[in-house]
Amino acid sequence: MERVAILGGGNIANHLIKAFLENQEIVLQQIYARDVEQVRSFENSCDITNSIRALKEADVYIIAVSDTAIGEVSAAIPSTSLVVHTSGSVAMDTLQNSGRKGVFYPLQSFTKNKKVNFRNIPFCIEAETKQDLFLLEKLAHSLSDKIYLINSQERRYLHVAAVFVNNFTNHLYQIGEDICKNYKVPFEILMPLIRETAAKIEAISPKEAQTGPAKRGDSKTMQNHLNLLTKEQQKIYKILSDSITHGEKL
Amino acid sequence: MERVAILGGGNIANHLIKAFLENQEIVLQQIYARDVEQVRSFENSCDITNSIRALKEADVYIIAVSDTAIGEVSAAIPSTSLVVHTSGSVAMDTLQNSGRKGVFYPLQSFTKNKKVNFRNIPFCIEAETKQDLFLLEKLAHSLSDKIYLINSQERRYLHVAAVFVNNFTNHLYQIGEDICKNYKVPFEILMPLIRETAAKIEAISPKEAQTGPAKRGDSKTMQNHLNLLTKEQQKIYKILSDSITHGEKL
Repeated sequence: MERVAILGGGNIANHLIKAFLENQEIVLQQIYARDVEQVRSFENSCDITNSIRALKEADVYIIAVSDTAIGEVSAAIPSTSLVVHTSGSVAMDTLQNSGRKGVFYPLQSFTKNKKVNFRNIPFCIEAETKQDLFLLEKLAHSLSDKIYLINSQERRYLHVAAVFVNNFTNHLYQIGEDICKNYKVPFEILMPLIRETAAKIEAISPKEAQTGPAKRGDSKTMQNHLNLLTKEQQKIYKILSDSITHGEKL
Repeated sequence: MERVAILGGGNIANHLIKAFLENQEIVLQQIYARDVEQVRSFENSCDITNSIRALKEADVYIIAVSDTAIGEVSAAIPSTSLVVHTSGSVAMDTLQNSGRKGVFYPLQSFTKNKKVNFRNIPFCIEAETKQDLFLLEKLAHSLSDKIYLINSQERRYLHVAAVFVNNFTNHLYQIGEDICKNYKVPFEILMPLIRETAAKIEAISPKEAQTGPAKRGDSKTMQNHLNLLTKEQQKIYKILSDSITHGEKL
């Protein structure tokens, strides 16, 4: 059975720790966190350390720290076993450990205290050798049904696409909520529409699914909408409507 | 049993016709469409006419035509029964029929050939009298479990909020797909993230759910992302990141 150590105390680390503790196929050997308070809730289930030199031997070290700390943390690992990070936007060769390197990137947005079902989360894995890819595939399969071999360059593209469909989309939800709050209409009325908008593109492409005043070239409705918005909301409304209209003209 | 006539041949009309034909509580009396080809598939189930003067008497006339045609079509209805439109952005008093007026607005994005479950679709209803509101409530309840009393002013706000969470969100999905196609990575990897982004805000607010480089103030990752994008994508990336960052500062 593979022995895994997790380094980090943030959202991804916490979610991975929970998932590996529930997992019968993998041994969670140890948790390293600079601030052990962040992982205190696991102290009865797993060995915890805040000293990277005290790391025990494991088969895979999973670094789930902030992007800028990956180099430093990896350099300090006292083992030649496989070391992977979990970041969407950091290249594999950012790892500074002396031994084998890889990436173990769960493509999902993790929020504290919001339980996730790992079986549906795509894992993008990368390694230097087939043997290590095989090891990461086994690890990923113990958590998820969706494994993709994605190299560092491809992962950069995926990550920026993910910013659009996740971070920016969520910000549009927030603007929708701001408008509703501002005018005292219940935001919950929009929930089924939000769900359907996301579900629809599993059946048809976003291009086919596009509707609305910008798509129809309905400038009267667009002007009416602009009159209801704040300056910042107007800027976003205009640039996105223009982009939808350009797409139509191309 | 209430007798309903539907006027229109587009997406909303087609979806409403299907739903009323399957409905045991309501009689779909007649369909009017300028171009009967658009509703030809219902000719064995319902009386169809392309002459508005040939409209039979009904309890409610539901106008589901383009926003700009609502005035004209309503003016031609030869009855004093209740006439409603189905638009999110048109005021009730745009109706030009001689008798009673109302609004029967299903807040959803309808796409041709994509079946919808009306039971989850919020209906925003409006009328001039309590009696007509009661009639529309009965009609809406025969299709859906979610009924909201929303006046013309409130509906305008809801509609612009819906453009953000539906039309603009779908456009961000399209940009995500464009990036993936451009760089030959499979867009399907992003589907679970898209689903989770939509599902998450049923548990926590969009503001709490916000993550990503703009939220963290991670300008290095943002610059790396900009380098991968087209000019138009860059503009959208910058304006949305700025808006997320401003939100943080306020």
